[in-house]
Amino acid sequence: MKLARWAANGQLHQGTVENGVLKSKDGTEYQPDSVVWLPPNWPGKVIGIALNFADHAKELNLAKPELPAIFLKPQTSLVGHKANVLMPPKSDYMHYEVELVAIIGRTCRHVKAKDALDYVQGYTIGNDVTIRDHIGPYFRPPLIGKGWDTFGPVGPWIVTADEFGLPHEVELKTYVNNDLRQHGTTKDLIYSLEEMIEYCSMIMTLEEGDQIWTGTPAGLSHVYPGDVMRLEIQGIGALENTVVQGTQPLSPILKK
Amino acid sequence: MKLARWAANGQLHQGTVENGVLKSKDGTEYQPDSVVWLPPNWPGKVIGIALNFADHAKELNLAKPELPAIFLKPQTSLVGHKANVLMPPKSDYMHYEVELVAIIGRTCRHVKAKDALDYVQGYTIGNDVTIRDHIGPYFRPPLIGKGWDTFGPVGPWIVTADEFGLPHEVELKTYVNNDLRQHGTTKDLIYSLEEMIEYCSMIMTLEEGDQIWTGTPAGLSHVYPGDVMRLEIQGIGALENTVVQGTQPLSPILKK
Repeated sequence: MKLARWAANGQLHQGTVENGVLKSKDGTEYQPDSVVWLPPNWPGKVIGIALNFADHAKELNLAKPELPAIFLKPQTSLVGHKANVLMPPKSDYMHYEVELVAIIGRTCRHVKAKDALDYVQGYTIGNDVTIRDHIGPYFRPPLIGKGWDTFGPVGPWIVTADEFGLPHEVELKTYVNNDLRQHGTTKDLIYSLEEMIEYCSMIMTLEEGDQIWTGTPAGLSHVYPGDVMRLEIQGIGALENTVVQGTQPLSPILKK
Repeated sequence: MKLARWAANGQLHQGTVENGVLKSKDGTEYQPDSVVWLPPNWPGKVIGIALNFADHAKELNLAKPELPAIFLKPQTSLVGHKANVLMPPKSDYMHYEVELVAIIGRTCRHVKAKDALDYVQGYTIGNDVTIRDHIGPYFRPPLIGKGWDTFGPVGPWIVTADEFGLPHEVELKTYVNNDLRQHGTTKDLIYSLEEMIEYCSMIMTLEEGDQIWTGTPAGLSHVYPGDVMRLEIQGIGALENTVVQGTQPLSPILKK
């Protein structure tokens, strides 16, 4: 099943996507071009991981972390499919990062890796937009690098785990203006999703809805206003967002 | 006005504190010793700042950051007054950090420092518990240093801004087992609360309820199981929590 959230006629809707048509809980159908896509859920926490592909760590000239280098992205950075990503002034090095995102389905703590997938509701696509100007070596990864409003495109929908299958050999791609820039597979993750869930839940309670972003493969390049980032993940679909100069996001009123 | 949240008879209550007595919205009164204190609100974001007092940066042999070194603490780390703080296994260097915490009262973006206090609902006390074993120089400050469940004691209540007054010369103290360990004033903040709000809201939307933790003065020392941390802030009161060995927090069911 594909689960989505969208705004239409000034209202928030939740429902499913079937054969390309959005179907809200009350049975009303919406054509995808007539809605504003929202993040498919609104999590308490968005947990990211730095350098979780060896090839990506290498392209940044950074050592493989000895422990999962997890961090939090603010929920307020989340936007849906087709939303604009706003490039702040004085930013020269802005990048996309395609990531498989797991949604926690049940609140949990102290989960073992072997049981971890039991706690996953489903999967979606995340774009961990980053301004590398601000990711210095010292306080990295600071909020000024990854925390801006609109720096977390996510969606278009959650594919439930029963439909998605296992997350172990899933192909990830990023196209910028139809040019292939990233192409990897979750087979090459340094820390698997299950190990991430064990590690995170050792430290803190994972709540229903929390998002675990699993890291990005090599292939970073700069994007600029006007560029269209199209992220594809096998078994989910495509998440498309356009870079625009500016700092004023759309009203977040309908996001939750 | 003092605003608090607590659990009693298996129910969550919200209300006020008057002359030491908790008064729920339905008018029922509770004696403070008969309740479980909860975090006085449940924020979307908990924003912390590293090294915001020059004397504290100096004691850690770290340079003053060129920009506010802000980071996120997970909400799941929050606990209330009197809750146990659980020291994880294999941790040798666990510290308290007394901080003045501002609660955002209205969702906002692009706020200027001169207007920032208009967006503050009130103030409370935060203890930014940190295991310094895990704050390495590289991916600092990672979640494993500051993100554990129970590492964010906060409360006991929010003093509304009209009653609290201005946050510019407020005395902060930490006692461990009645021994004074930290003693500072917000006069010595490197980045004032207003500057922090301007900086954070340049990057991201601050939502109603978000907590801004303003940093801690010098005076860190190790704490161990059995130690009682008592944090006092002028105009608010005292936040008291005991260190206990363990990793299994109380049920978070009633926290929200």
